[in-house]
Amino acid sequence: MSAAPRRGRRPGAPDTRAAILVAARELFAAHGFAGTSVRAVATAAGVDAALVHHYFGTKDDLFLAALELRVDPRVALLPVIEGGVDGAGERLMRLFVSVWDVEETRLPLLALVRGVLDPGGQQLVRDGFFRMVLGPVGSALELDQPERRMQLVASQLIGLVVLRYVLAVEPLASASSEELIATYAPTLQRYLSGPLP
Amino acid sequence: MSAAPRRGRRPGAPDTRAAILVAARELFAAHGFAGTSVRAVATAAGVDAALVHHYFGTKDDLFLAALELRVDPRVALLPVIEGGVDGAGERLMRLFVSVWDVEETRLPLLALVRGVLDPGGQQLVRDGFFRMVLGPVGSALELDQPERRMQLVASQLIGLVVLRYVLAVEPLASASSEELIATYAPTLQRYLSGPLP
Repeated sequence: MSAAPRRGRRPGAPDTRAAILVAARELFAAHGFAGTSVRAVATAAGVDAALVHHYFGTKDDLFLAALELRVDPRVALLPVIEGGVDGAGERLMRLFVSVWDVEETRLPLLALVRGVLDPGGQQLVRDGFFRMVLGPVGSALELDQPERRMQLVASQLIGLVVLRYVLAVEPLASASSEELIATYAPTLQRYLSGPLP
Repeated sequence: MSAAPRRGRRPGAPDTRAAILVAARELFAAHGFAGTSVRAVATAAGVDAALVHHYFGTKDDLFLAALELRVDPRVALLPVIEGGVDGAGERLMRLFVSVWDVEETRLPLLALVRGVLDPGGQQLVRDGFFRMVLGPVGSALELDQPERRMQLVASQLIGLVVLRYVLAVEPLASASSEELIATYAPTLQRYLSGPLP
């Protein structure tokens, strides 16, 4: 993104693409994914809806672009989903570590997590994390009670994020990827396919 | 606290006790528990150190008072500790729910959790949660690698706090106490006494 070519002839011109992203982020934060239309984003950015689709594709694409993640979860989650529920705990944990332990992908996620404490940010986390990540995984794995199970998974992963990446408590902050995977995969697997009370 | 008798004769007088608490909270947030002396708190509040001890007791007591919890964790944790490591996951989970599901005790804890995202607040969470709660439990239960194990426990409980009490996602936010205990106790127990990688 930082290497995007400048339009040299219009030094003071607003960057249309950036304006759309700003509008999208504000509206998604205020009204959630369901309460935000591409048309409303276009209006807020002062452009035509067709231009939004031209730049960003579908509303899902626009939402993901507004989150400014460096990874498309729909792609990244494929290997987790494709193997079915057996071993999904370990594969999900492996993906989690591969995304969170690399600064380039961690920083935008951390920004999202920090938003958890203000209402707009909460909407983004709910829609971003639950709609774009947990929902698709739960249904692709054909879990019984997918929402409930994926929330248990989320409750473990979010706590790990807070301790390892936000508070950076030791020794957890320095634990190796393999140690994390071995520690947490059984928990995730139990939440995915174990008995529920 | 709201029912504390007013000292009617001194309407404009500063509340010494409150001033000490404010100073303590600021210093603990800025310098952590270890980096804050009772003397420094007394100086910041403009009183003698003996008065701080008179009002609040030990430095531990002062710290807990500054956190403004409604429960003394040293007392609340006794039933968790006394039974030894067998079943401690369930007893800890039961205590957790009993504290977090009651508004009076939940609100001050939520305030502490919200502090996780600013550096001063992080120091309070680290000292408050780890020094006052997790540390004592880990050593009283005579765990091997107590720090590591208690951090795993914390990583689950903090995530549960975020999802159930901060984001309030359903169905987790409405799950019954017994359901939560049955779901999470095995996880905590594995972290307390199961094999570590």
